[in-house]
Amino acid sequence: MTEFTPTDYNPYDFANRRHIGPSPAEMGEMLKAVGAPTLDQLIAETVPASIRQEKPLGWAPLAEHELLARMKEVGAKNRVMTSLIGQGYYGTVTPPAIQRNIFENPAWYTAYTPYQPEIAQGRLEALLNYQTMVCDLTGLDIANASLLDEATAAAEAMAMAERSSKSKAKAFFVDRFCHPQTIAVIRTRAEPLGIEIIEADVALLEPEKVLGAIFQYPGSYGHVTDFTAKIALLHEHKALAIVATDLLALCLLKEPGAMGADIAIGSAQRFGVPMGYGGPHAAFMACRDGLKRDMPGRIVGVSVDSHGTRAYRLSLQTREQHIRREKATSNVCTAQALLAVMASMYAVFHGPKGLRAIAERVHSMTQRLAHALKAAGAKVAPKAFFDTITVEVGVGQAGILAAARNEGLNFRKIGNDRIGISLDETTSEEVLTRVLRAFGILGVPPHRAELGFPDKMLRETEYLTHPIFHMNRAESEMMRYMRRLSDRDLALDRAMIPLGSCTMKLNAAAEMMPVSWPEFGSLHPFAPADQAAGYHEAISDLTAKLCEITGYDAFSMQPNSGAQGEYAGLLTILAYHKARGDEQRKICLIPISAHGTNPASAQMAGMEVVVVRSSPNGDVDLDDFRDKAAKAGDRLAACMITYPSTHGVFEETVREVCKITHEHGGQVYIDGANMNAMVGLVKPGEIGGDVSHLNLHKTFAIPHGGGGPGMGPIGVGAHLAPYLPGHPETGGAEGPVSAAPYGSASILLISWAYCLMMGGEGLTQATRVAILNANYIAARLKGSYEVLYMGNRGRVAHECILDTRPFAEAGVTVDDIAKRLIDNGFHAPTMSWPVSGTLMVEPTESETKAEIDRFITALQAIREEIRAVENGEIKAEESPLRFAPHTVQDLVQDWDRKYSREQGCFPPAAFRVDKYWPPVGRIDNVYGDRNLVCTCPPLESYLDAAE
Amino acid sequence: MTEFTPTDYNPYDFANRRHIGPSPAEMGEMLKAVGAPTLDQLIAETVPASIRQEKPLGWAPLAEHELLARMKEVGAKNRVMTSLIGQGYYGTVTPPAIQRNIFENPAWYTAYTPYQPEIAQGRLEALLNYQTMVCDLTGLDIANASLLDEATAAAEAMAMAERSSKSKAKAFFVDRFCHPQTIAVIRTRAEPLGIEIIEADVALLEPEKVLGAIFQYPGSYGHVTDFTAKIALLHEHKALAIVATDLLALCLLKEPGAMGADIAIGSAQRFGVPMGYGGPHAAFMACRDGLKRDMPGRIVGVSVDSHGTRAYRLSLQTREQHIRREKATSNVCTAQALLAVMASMYAVFHGPKGLRAIAERVHSMTQRLAHALKAAGAKVAPKAFFDTITVEVGVGQAGILAAARNEGLNFRKIGNDRIGISLDETTSEEVLTRVLRAFGILGVPPHRAELGFPDKMLRETEYLTHPIFHMNRAESEMMRYMRRLSDRDLALDRAMIPLGSCTMKLNAAAEMMPVSWPEFGSLHPFAPADQAAGYHEAISDLTAKLCEITGYDAFSMQPNSGAQGEYAGLLTILAYHKARGDEQRKICLIPISAHGTNPASAQMAGMEVVVVRSSPNGDVDLDDFRDKAAKAGDRLAACMITYPSTHGVFEETVREVCKITHEHGGQVYIDGANMNAMVGLVKPGEIGGDVSHLNLHKTFAIPHGGGGPGMGPIGVGAHLAPYLPGHPETGGAEGPVSAAPYGSASILLISWAYCLMMGGEGLTQATRVAILNANYIAARLKGSYEVLYMGNRGRVAHECILDTRPFAEAGVTVDDIAKRLIDNGFHAPTMSWPVSGTLMVEPTESETKAEIDRFITALQAIREEIRAVENGEIKAEESPLRFAPHTVQDLVQDWDRKYSREQGCFPPAAFRVDKYWPPVGRIDNVYGDRNLVCTCPPLESYLDAAE
Repeated sequence: MTEFTPTDYNPYDFANRRHIGPSPAEMGEMLKAVGAPTLDQLIAETVPASIRQEKPLGWAPLAEHELLARMKEVGAKNRVMTSLIGQGYYGTVTPPAIQRNIFENPAWYTAYTPYQPEIAQGRLEALLNYQTMVCDLTGLDIANASLLDEATAAAEAMAMAERSSKSKAKAFFVDRFCHPQTIAVIRTRAEPLGIEIIEADVALLEPEKVLGAIFQYPGSYGHVTDFTAKIALLHEHKALAIVATDLLALCLLKEPGAMGADIAIGSAQRFGVPMGYGGPHAAFMACRDGLKRDMPGRIVGVSVDSHGTRAYRLSLQTREQHIRREKATSNVCTAQALLAVMASMYAVFHGPKGLRAIAERVHSMTQRLAHALKAAGAKVAPKAFFDTITVEVGVGQAGILAAARNEGLNFRKIGNDRIGISLDETTSEEVLTRVLRAFGILGVPPHRAELGFPDKMLRETEYLTHPIFHMNRAESEMMRYMRRLSDRDLALDRAMIPLGSCTMKLNAAAEMMPVSWPEFGSLHPFAPADQAAGYHEAISDLTAKLCEITGYDAFSMQPNSGAQGEYAGLLTILAYHKARGDEQRKICLIPISAHGTNPASAQMAGMEVVVVRSSPNGDVDLDDFRDKAAKAGDRLAACMITYPSTHGVFEETVREVCKITHEHGGQVYIDGANMNAMVGLVKPGEIGGDVSHLNLHKTFAIPHGGGGPGMGPIGVGAHLAPYLPGHPETGGAEGPVSAAPYGSASILLISWAYCLMMGGEGLTQATRVAILNANYIAARLKGSYEVLYMGNRGRVAHECILDTRPFAEAGVTVDDIAKRLIDNGFHAPTMSWPVSGTLMVEPTESETKAEIDRFITALQAIREEIRAVENGEIKAEESPLRFAPHTVQDLVQDWDRKYSREQGCFPPAAFRVDKYWPPVGRIDNVYGDRNLVCTCPPLESYLDAAE
Repeated sequence: MTEFTPTDYNPYDFANRRHIGPSPAEMGEMLKAVGAPTLDQLIAETVPASIRQEKPLGWAPLAEHELLARMKEVGAKNRVMTSLIGQGYYGTVTPPAIQRNIFENPAWYTAYTPYQPEIAQGRLEALLNYQTMVCDLTGLDIANASLLDEATAAAEAMAMAERSSKSKAKAFFVDRFCHPQTIAVIRTRAEPLGIEIIEADVALLEPEKVLGAIFQYPGSYGHVTDFTAKIALLHEHKALAIVATDLLALCLLKEPGAMGADIAIGSAQRFGVPMGYGGPHAAFMACRDGLKRDMPGRIVGVSVDSHGTRAYRLSLQTREQHIRREKATSNVCTAQALLAVMASMYAVFHGPKGLRAIAERVHSMTQRLAHALKAAGAKVAPKAFFDTITVEVGVGQAGILAAARNEGLNFRKIGNDRIGISLDETTSEEVLTRVLRAFGILGVPPHRAELGFPDKMLRETEYLTHPIFHMNRAESEMMRYMRRLSDRDLALDRAMIPLGSCTMKLNAAAEMMPVSWPEFGSLHPFAPADQAAGYHEAISDLTAKLCEITGYDAFSMQPNSGAQGEYAGLLTILAYHKARGDEQRKICLIPISAHGTNPASAQMAGMEVVVVRSSPNGDVDLDDFRDKAAKAGDRLAACMITYPSTHGVFEETVREVCKITHEHGGQVYIDGANMNAMVGLVKPGEIGGDVSHLNLHKTFAIPHGGGGPGMGPIGVGAHLAPYLPGHPETGGAEGPVSAAPYGSASILLISWAYCLMMGGEGLTQATRVAILNANYIAARLKGSYEVLYMGNRGRVAHECILDTRPFAEAGVTVDDIAKRLIDNGFHAPTMSWPVSGTLMVEPTESETKAEIDRFITALQAIREEIRAVENGEIKAEESPLRFAPHTVQDLVQDWDRKYSREQGCFPPAAFRVDKYWPPVGRIDNVYGDRNLVCTCPPLESYLDAAE
């Protein structure tokens, strides 16, 4: 027997063998290109010593199989009961074909927001289906491609009404039958906007006193009410009517449009999206045509490409806050794309006949339940209902709730004497029997051949008449439809997406798997806490780790997007000031280079935005900052900075900025968008930050889902902790910002899994390699492109900005370069942000050297093509740059270009065999906005386009 | 309140809303085209009344969510313990990226066997990687693309040795350290071949007395033995040496090739494929170059396409039994492609460094265990081991096994006084501690810095040196590699695969999901029965349903392919005859039109094949049958028929054929390949069959996996039940045919799920619609193609044969049509079988009318192109038919064809935007066989090809 020591190579090392792209040997080569002797040295040259954290992150990593075992263990601590709580969240059957082919398919979940429409036609079509479905069911003209959750959508609708209403009233009426969390989020939102909330019974509505009103339909306690008359009254007084509604109910009930509603909002969760202890799900918003330019969120519209072929794109993008900046009245730019896609596919799969059948079945079950309860002598309300009833139980409440739990059921506790029950498509005969048994009633209730609401409330119009909702009833066809759509798109499963500030890193399979498990997916967000012990363990451990990473003392997991996080963070600051008697502190200093959401969030929080100039190197102009802070004086509420800066540089002055702010009594908000350059190296809470939001979908591995979901939890110093968002279900002094206490709770598991598998050391190494990868690109592109905003020592942080303005003279635009990258098989970097005419590139740590080299090859080849234009060898408008992206259609047609087919379609970085072909050529943005079509076009128009 | 009755439309009706393609309205249109007033009438005209079953299938269907709930419930009855039983099955860590992107991805699992290589380049590359991996690790020259399981592979190797050996000896030596199930399957196989088995200690091998020998390395009880000297002795006597081995062990141990072995076999299960209570997993076989033409199974080889580009294809297909027919000596034509792909990806992902680290870790753990046991005074064998040790425990055996179970562990019970323990890559420190605790030893065993086997047994050669095993270490890159490969292929997730006799129906997502669950995946096939109660419930209910469907009385789930089923069925018949003293009954009557596997299986069972003629209409020639049966007389063992016939017709004479067979004392084997035309309408057991195998991967929704897995259980009448295959682990008088008692047990769940969700009525409707779909194609193609072999009333069964021979005169081949279908976005139908120069089309019930119409459009357009050749408008060799399939490369190149790019690439049925582009042009089969390369070519040769 001979000596033998196993190698120390750990094949299960998730951080270094799975998540981080370059191998150690490749890193050596890359460092050589960068001109740094070691990675340590590069980091030292990049991240100022003055801000480096001292203590490394502590915890040990788990392997993938250990993580999955841990998740199983934690999941088992959740108790999945049949939740009949309702209140905006319902049991639903996710069709397995949709679960497998969308929810669990990286082609869908790793996609980015469809800002580059040529490579996003698949998800744009799915989202157009979503909009069509929402328009049809609500009976309104135009819908957006989803919002964050129902309560946020309601608040957005109120703000929209405030913008659009011609009434001079300043109050907003809220139906007391709205869901409690909806009312609470509306209140949170109204306060900084100076809108008075009148919450009352609809009968008490005084239309002359309000700018608008929101009604819930069916109401939170079940009421099916016809608001037609009230809406007419509102309109008489130039006030707007918003209906918070339920898509399933609308398959049977008169639609809000038919009542005259101006806006309808709600959640599409019960269209096949698991409850997930609060999310993510897609909320919807629809409005009549006249209001469309005031509608927040993204709207998919129809346009044409360079061949005149129909093509989809985001419409009216000028409404987005990154354009509006200081004038923004909403910071909602994110959506819940993946979940909207799922909900739309649910409708496509079931078709109108299936949806109606489901609605009828749910209603019939509820009707039988109500009758059985009444027959047994119970007092059941309301008279007209769809799927929800309320039972007066008096002092018996606790007993019945306990009996229900014994039956594995959660009822809704209403006050101290009533119980709410909402049925859903998962309610079987057996569940019905258990429900009744909880009331001491035995046996199956008989069928009732009558409606549970007045005849006149029956819907009279058709819906989902478009062929797309009639063609995919068989699973084979449905599977192929989903595949075809996903094949049209370019997502992380095919290529790097080097988006500056968006951190498109690996979304590892092991991180995603637990989200599909019923023990996490089937929990109602308002289920009793003892049923969610697994979630609480996960959230609490994630919180501890995020505190260690950021140096903060407490976290709120409620904000379900980065923008919501900013807003919540600013509200927290304001509440803190208020508690100290500093209500006058409203000024927020924001550097000119900030993310557009920063000023938008500040506006929403009722703050006064004061913009701070940049110095020529892109840093915050310290003198200007000092001046403006001093000028604000005791009116200074906060400053909002991004670190490292939006220019991708670790500004040495950050501590000084924080100091100045604090000296004037302000609080420092550090935007966490660039946290991927800091984890393990710098703690925002240590360098002077009081609050930060973290984009868990950027730094912490939640996939972008083609434009959502996301999560934007906020970390705060201990002094701010008491002022974090509260929630009607879980308590707290402050109002909520999201519908659910922990936002989109189920995807917190992804970030937790990421932290657990990376370990503290792995996370730190990820940051270091992210910086290496960015510097490698900057170094390799030297001579081809000018890299803007290097740090003092000539280093960039985790992203780099390439200047394309010098090419303008030759007539080459940043768009040309972006589209030409598609020909090379890449998603374009972030365009014209933070500086117009530039490309911001962020490779992330997950990309391998091979893929980064392919990207460099592409950019270098493009530079040569530009040079040919500059040299007069070819005109810009005749060059492959302008005709990009090239499609198969180009190849099939006669070819009269000044360059060859080969050169056009196979630039050096394109794969030969595995080339990605965009389904359409360059899309005409102006045409689409001029001819706004935001629902599925009729079939004939498809024929036209084909001809 | 008004009257209200919910619609009777059931949106959860799996059979009619998910599985079956055409809607009721579409069926109406199709019946019109077919010229039948109702579906009932069509069925009456197709299926003779004389054979129709009387009682409809009984059970009610489950919805998808009900099915998943039922599966959870059943799964919970399995108890997942840590199984250290070894014996060919080991715990393994399936990399989540591979699980999600291959095992759970329809692009991989719904693919067909790569007989059309142009649309199968992705899986062919993955299988070439598999072959390269097997060659490298075994140190041999050539490997096939997998076999069914290790025991079958061993039996195949023995048969191969018998064919190839130049020794005159008739005996075959089996090392007594081979796995018991391997020995048993070898014995089963040897008997009908007349090979005497000598099972003994290797020391007792007398090389002059044997044609070959098989050694297990490491042995079943752990022994690491150098067989070099024994192999040299065998070679001296012209006998062949087979080594049954373990890929993980070979990462550390001297490889069989270095010992001089001629053949190596084994299982690739522990390379990331869950145990699944027995399967499916891929077995492997490798041999030295000189034996390659005798190797069974599929071999992927490298060839070139019409552009001279490298392309992959199945090599040496002439070896397959469908060509050899009566001369076949193996019926193994199926493989375990999906699982071989997974195992190869595991190797690609880990690379040689990772694999070696895993092997070292497992060995080191075993070494520590052995030392700790020895230190505590236990008698541990063998002296030289890799991952398996045996402990002498005497009368303490039962106590220790019980203590182990208390620790959640399964040890291997060996005899009455020993215990076997095999460690694997999932063995953690904590498991090791539990193992020792079961022996009463407390504490963690210390690290041992020495090898558990002699130094000279260390492997000296490199492996997996090809770049493919070095490029995908990061998950991003690995995910993209898997995506790229799958995108090259055309599977059911993109289009209909209308393969006659292969029944490529929907593999529904709900059916597939449970197979991924650990409660089904992690069970060792030899785990104690009480830990597999869930499996037993599932298998027993599936058996009951299959009995009801077929009219048989008992089933064996052991055969893990259709061919194995045939073989097992014939052995059952022979055992029955033998038990009745009819050992002389060896003649098997087989119609000329039979599947090639039928005669091959009969040969393997030691039967004498007598071929029966067909009458001109394709039916069995009854007179010839009668004559030959009479002539066989008391030597008649069986007849093998397919029903409906391989020509796709319900022969009215079937009862007569059975009667004649029975009159002469024979048994009737009805091949279940066409069961999809019978379920719910005809029971083979009622019309005279005594045995049938069912291809669960055809009729019962198991996906084809790109060429396996499959399952071929056999049903028999009560009189044959005692003679079904037994197994060393579960008992029974007869020998086993597969390594595991229930074959590939985990995929039985798919068929069970299918039966449960369809319900009896749904299954019957599926059969009816399968017949409708086929007749619709036949009717619509009238005038374009002649449909061969209609039944008496002008109907086909579930498939139809299109005659392409009339086009030969114009120079158009069946190949031209098949490849032109690729341009239309279709996989070709079955070619030239059962009649040369024909296409056999089977749409299955799952295809929608839209997709079938698209297929008809394609075939009609092709017919017009043929007509153009016939009319002399274009020459065949200049037509798009001959240049098919067209690739993007064609489009990019200069175009000097006689037809336009548009016409070439976008024939009428091709999708415009979503067109499938084959990655290569037509592949040169002859070149590939002449220049046989069956491992990954060196990287330079890729460069050559690219240039």
